Amino acid sequence: MGDWDASQYLKFEDERTRPAADLLARVPLDDPKLVVDLGCGPGNSTELLARRFPQAQVTGLDKSPDMIAKARARLPEIRFEEADAGTWAPAAPVDLLYSNAALHWLPDHEALFTKLAASLAPGGCLAMQMPDTLGEDVHVLAREVAASGPWADKLAATAEARATIASFEDTYAWLCTECRHVDIWQTIYVHPLDGAEAIVAWIKSTGLRPFLDPLDADEQAEFLRHYTARIADAYPRQPDGKALLRFPRRFIVAIR
Amino acid sequence: MGDWDASQYLKFEDERTRPAADLLARVPLDDPKLVVDLGCGPGNSTELLARRFPQAQVTGLDKSPDMIAKARARLPEIRFEEADAGTWAPAAPVDLLYSNAALHWLPDHEALFTKLAASLAPGGCLAMQMPDTLGEDVHVLAREVAASGPWADKLAATAEARATIASFEDTYAWLCTECRHVDIWQTIYVHPLDGAEAIVAWIKSTGLRPFLDPLDADEQAEFLRHYTARIADAYPRQPDGKALLRFPRRFIVAIR
Repeated sequence: MGDWDASQYLKFEDERTRPAADLLARVPLDDPKLVVDLGCGPGNSTELLARRFPQAQVTGLDKSPDMIAKARARLPEIRFEEADAGTWAPAAPVDLLYSNAALHWLPDHEALFTKLAASLAPGGCLAMQMPDTLGEDVHVLAREVAASGPWADKLAATAEARATIASFEDTYAWLCTECRHVDIWQTIYVHPLDGAEAIVAWIKSTGLRPFLDPLDADEQAEFLRHYTARIADAYPRQPDGKALLRFPRRFIVAIR
Repeated sequence: MGDWDASQYLKFEDERTRPAADLLARVPLDDPKLVVDLGCGPGNSTELLARRFPQAQVTGLDKSPDMIAKARARLPEIRFEEADAGTWAPAAPVDLLYSNAALHWLPDHEALFTKLAASLAPGGCLAMQMPDTLGEDVHVLAREVAASGPWADKLAATAEARATIASFEDTYAWLCTECRHVDIWQTIYVHPLDGAEAIVAWIKSTGLRPFLDPLDADEQAEFLRHYTARIADAYPRQPDGKALLRFPRRFIVAIR
């Protein structure tokens, strides 16, 4: 995929920061020294971490140069570095390893999560949130439009771009031997948005990127026209004109 | 049903208070004057309300005399009264109408929620949380054991004892004309408990009551023996010996 568009991503900043705050609210640490925000994006979650732990050394890591540039401009006093969460390893054990809406882009969560848990200091905390939306209409319809248009060959591999989220039981089993406390929950947020166009605008900057990036401009426009019509059917307007976007997210907080 | 057993209910107080706190965290009020805790149980949620809003007049209401007695003993400075949430109406418009894990026992949520929303002062908040567990194995297996034993006739009406939780869309449609902001979400909590016996102990004091109350002591023991065996199969132990109880809960916060 090409680089991320930070300003498109931030269009729904309030809704996207809420799960970051919900995740942080369950981190039971008082005074972590080393805090890492893995896949920090434009720094909205890093800002929450720095505000809650003003004494800590907070570092934000992201693969995207555009995101890192936006994050540095937003929070000049925080250290941000380009890094790939899949291969990154800390120089010293981390007290809080936090990751909001990033790790669902990486494969093999069993190996990844156990590696991340092992990089914690004793008493340290691994806190992760990932969208679990592949079964939602926004994704099901993207796959259907991808498979049924003239772009079907170009998009044949796209459906495998993201990891599926493991069951509660598997996730717990991976972490419960390395960690003494494992808290898992799933929240479906329900966002009232301004109709199908707003839903498409939301998903365009994230989940739809693997479908749009391989297409040329004309194909993208045509894909979006078909997709928006299907979304309008699947997410009918409420009496106040809003359409409800269901957005399931998985949360994991483990203490070593 | 007979009266509730407050001490059995409080066995899992931490887990049962967490959703009450999660609900309260999303209430966007600074200084409500009149606060009502509808279906307050033994007062654990009322305590959260009184702590967050020390200037408010907080009243706890519950149908169960045992729960009200426990709540009064716990919080002597708070007013608690026996009242049925289904027929109760406030004397004056309420600023915060809060209800944690109570309204799923009442029928016709459309009429109930719109009535409760209409009883709010302008700018007031209706905040509700309800278990949405009827599709979970703890309930499915209770219905199966109920239907397949010598007690089948006695328990024929039990499955209808609770309201099903309406869809996000229906709930939003009921409230969005009366209220200017409607926030709905669903969280599945995952509680690591000490095996099947602990799961049965959890559910015994709440969801299993309509199944056990109509039975005599011998039948209850036999029902629990069958049920516990089925629960042990459905909730296998994890590597650390725990069994994971999934517990979905629906949250609604509406501002008039």
